[in-house]
Amino acid sequence: MDKAIQIALLGFGTVGTGVVKVLESNADDIMKKVGAAIVLKKILVQSANKARKVATGAKIVTDIESIVNDQDIQIVVEVMGGEKPAKDYILQALRAGKHVVTANKDVVAKHGKELFEAAEASHVDFLFEASVGGGIPIIRPLKQCLAANRISEIMGIVNGTTNYMLTKMTKEHMDFATVLAEAQAKGYAEADPTADVGGFDAARKIAILASIAFGARVTLDDVYVEGITNIAIQDIEYARELGYVVKLLAIGKQDDQGINVRVHPALLPNSHPLAAVNDVFNAIFVKGDAVGETMFYGRGAGELPTASAVTADIIDVARDIRHGVSSRILCTCFEKKAICPVGTTESPYYIRLLVEDKPGVLAAIAGAFGAQQVSLHSVIQKRKVNGRTEIVLITYRVTDESIRLAMSTLAGMSVVNKVGNIIRVEAEEIIS
Amino acid sequence: MDKAIQIALLGFGTVGTGVVKVLESNADDIMKKVGAAIVLKKILVQSANKARKVATGAKIVTDIESIVNDQDIQIVVEVMGGEKPAKDYILQALRAGKHVVTANKDVVAKHGKELFEAAEASHVDFLFEASVGGGIPIIRPLKQCLAANRISEIMGIVNGTTNYMLTKMTKEHMDFATVLAEAQAKGYAEADPTADVGGFDAARKIAILASIAFGARVTLDDVYVEGITNIAIQDIEYARELGYVVKLLAIGKQDDQGINVRVHPALLPNSHPLAAVNDVFNAIFVKGDAVGETMFYGRGAGELPTASAVTADIIDVARDIRHGVSSRILCTCFEKKAICPVGTTESPYYIRLLVEDKPGVLAAIAGAFGAQQVSLHSVIQKRKVNGRTEIVLITYRVTDESIRLAMSTLAGMSVVNKVGNIIRVEAEEIIS
Repeated sequence: MDKAIQIALLGFGTVGTGVVKVLESNADDIMKKVGAAIVLKKILVQSANKARKVATGAKIVTDIESIVNDQDIQIVVEVMGGEKPAKDYILQALRAGKHVVTANKDVVAKHGKELFEAAEASHVDFLFEASVGGGIPIIRPLKQCLAANRISEIMGIVNGTTNYMLTKMTKEHMDFATVLAEAQAKGYAEADPTADVGGFDAARKIAILASIAFGARVTLDDVYVEGITNIAIQDIEYARELGYVVKLLAIGKQDDQGINVRVHPALLPNSHPLAAVNDVFNAIFVKGDAVGETMFYGRGAGELPTASAVTADIIDVARDIRHGVSSRILCTCFEKKAICPVGTTESPYYIRLLVEDKPGVLAAIAGAFGAQQVSLHSVIQKRKVNGRTEIVLITYRVTDESIRLAMSTLAGMSVVNKVGNIIRVEAEEIIS
Repeated sequence: MDKAIQIALLGFGTVGTGVVKVLESNADDIMKKVGAAIVLKKILVQSANKARKVATGAKIVTDIESIVNDQDIQIVVEVMGGEKPAKDYILQALRAGKHVVTANKDVVAKHGKELFEAAEASHVDFLFEASVGGGIPIIRPLKQCLAANRISEIMGIVNGTTNYMLTKMTKEHMDFATVLAEAQAKGYAEADPTADVGGFDAARKIAILASIAFGARVTLDDVYVEGITNIAIQDIEYARELGYVVKLLAIGKQDDQGINVRVHPALLPNSHPLAAVNDVFNAIFVKGDAVGETMFYGRGAGELPTASAVTADIIDVARDIRHGVSSRILCTCFEKKAICPVGTTESPYYIRLLVEDKPGVLAAIAGAFGAQQVSLHSVIQKRKVNGRTEIVLITYRVTDESIRLAMSTLAGMSVVNKVGNIIRVEAEEIIS
């Protein structure tokens, strides 16, 4: 058995606690897999006096220097989250020749390029499996297991909070505000839920996934983002009647025109593998030219699932250290690819309108869509509401731009009382 | 860019053709990922004159020596299948210092230990991602991504032929014989379908998966095997009425008693992630102490999906060669663990009986079960058949041994006309 590999944790919150637990409880197995023990030497915290949920033999420190200057420490594990000071600490560690493992989606999505370059310059590993999908193996499968493929599509349910909320709305017929309050009470949603329900958390994750899947850097600014705050209970019920579920999807696609990356709610056919992913579970669906359709499913957050991914990265680095190798697989963004503007994105649309209940209304509406080359697949009258009619339209595949033009015309029509919602349909073919 | 890495293929059938196609069509991307070109130098075939479905610049050879003695060839890729002569060729290649990639479940399940030892002795890589689950990443995720976990359960739908057949029976209400004939006509099932419908193909795969998941060698002989030939259309329909689907499951579980490995049809609750895996798709569900529940889904066979996994292994070895490292991750069967006899396996059971339609019959049957400590969760009378009654029983969790004893008593009772079927229920809790 080789001599122990010493590591340091930056952060001792939920994920840090999980990593301490996993390293401790599975120490024997991990030692066999690595061929050396992994010893947690130091943990960086903000306040040294705070009570902790788990005992550790590690030294608690409050300054990053005592870690980056410690020659015994070979791997620095960043689990503090947030952009500052995490990014600077990671950079310092890389420059000091430490291998780095991080669970930080903000830092990877925003500063990936700089960090990879620093890792390469120092000939060290930089791994971040836990930054997307919590415990679900997805970064390594994309970089290694699917490396022979040209990926055309990566589509994920990558935010557990919103998936829990949409599942509750679907299964228990609760409205958005009630579900949000319940999710907040349970600790599934933050007091300020914007990052989750606004789609921004998912946007960071799809930026990371798309960069790897397509071999070209995709940054947060490249991602079109729309949250779930407008999803009403009747949208979910009408979708169900039509054979769909409503999910918040993070989508990356590439074709000859370039890359298209977006986060938005969508109607997904019940038959799609992602449609059955419920509650706080996450899943990532990947389509490659050789492998066809694959999906990776599991818990996208939480103390132990995230610690599972972080510790797997630690084990991988430790194996590299034992074999005297590093930087085997670093940045894979080899190309520059065009980002397609969202206006050119094509999909069928679900549109819910409240219209006047009188003759000629449907013809007028169909005419307004037709003027923008938007063809309607179906028009369904759903119910009467105070002398008006709620209708649901499903369009054929149209560009985002055409639908926006058509909707602005419609909004100005006197027979259209209210545009209830407009939601993309993510399907190869419309279910009839 | 480093100098090209030269490889040889053993076999030029379906998978070999796929590997040639993938290496050719994605050559540029693969070269960027590896940092060197991968050049296919030679292909070993049985008959040099046979027409091939894909053009290749590789030299076609018919003797293994011209490959193992070729100093330029660094990676040997075995895609011929079957035990002989594949195993000997792999051994020769390993002993000659070649890295080996194989898609061969028979060889890995039966001779894994010997091949790993040969790889270790020669300081080369031995990878076999394609041996289970076709294109689905599962071997590498188990060995690396989930390395921090103690795995308690691995359960898969790992045979596409039988999953296609059971899906057809379920969705189109076709009986076993009709579906088998159709699958054979479509080329999904072999003329002799025993390996698939008898569960033996799945048994090889779960032996490989369980060995890795539990860190202890599990051989084919350790696997209890039962196929799907007895599954009748009414079993599938009764299961559906109760909230289950019938699937051929390959199951490995470990607890303090040891390892339990088996392949058999089972009733799986509709809510289980594997329940929605249909047609020729495969999926492997893994439960770990840190990660919780995860699932890996995709195409379990076919030219290009299997080639995706084989080529990923080739890329991984090539990265190792470029970085001057090998044997980073070889055999992980560190421990010896007890294999639990199938008689001790516990599960609820579904039992379909044809019984005499007269008073006191149900009491007599319940008594026979009770005598073996088998408690009945429910007894449902399904239909009258020629003056007899077909009944379905669901038991509480009992050992395999108890159920066998109870069934032998039942079979001898005059009121029991026929034992229609006995199928395990794979569920934590019985759906009521």
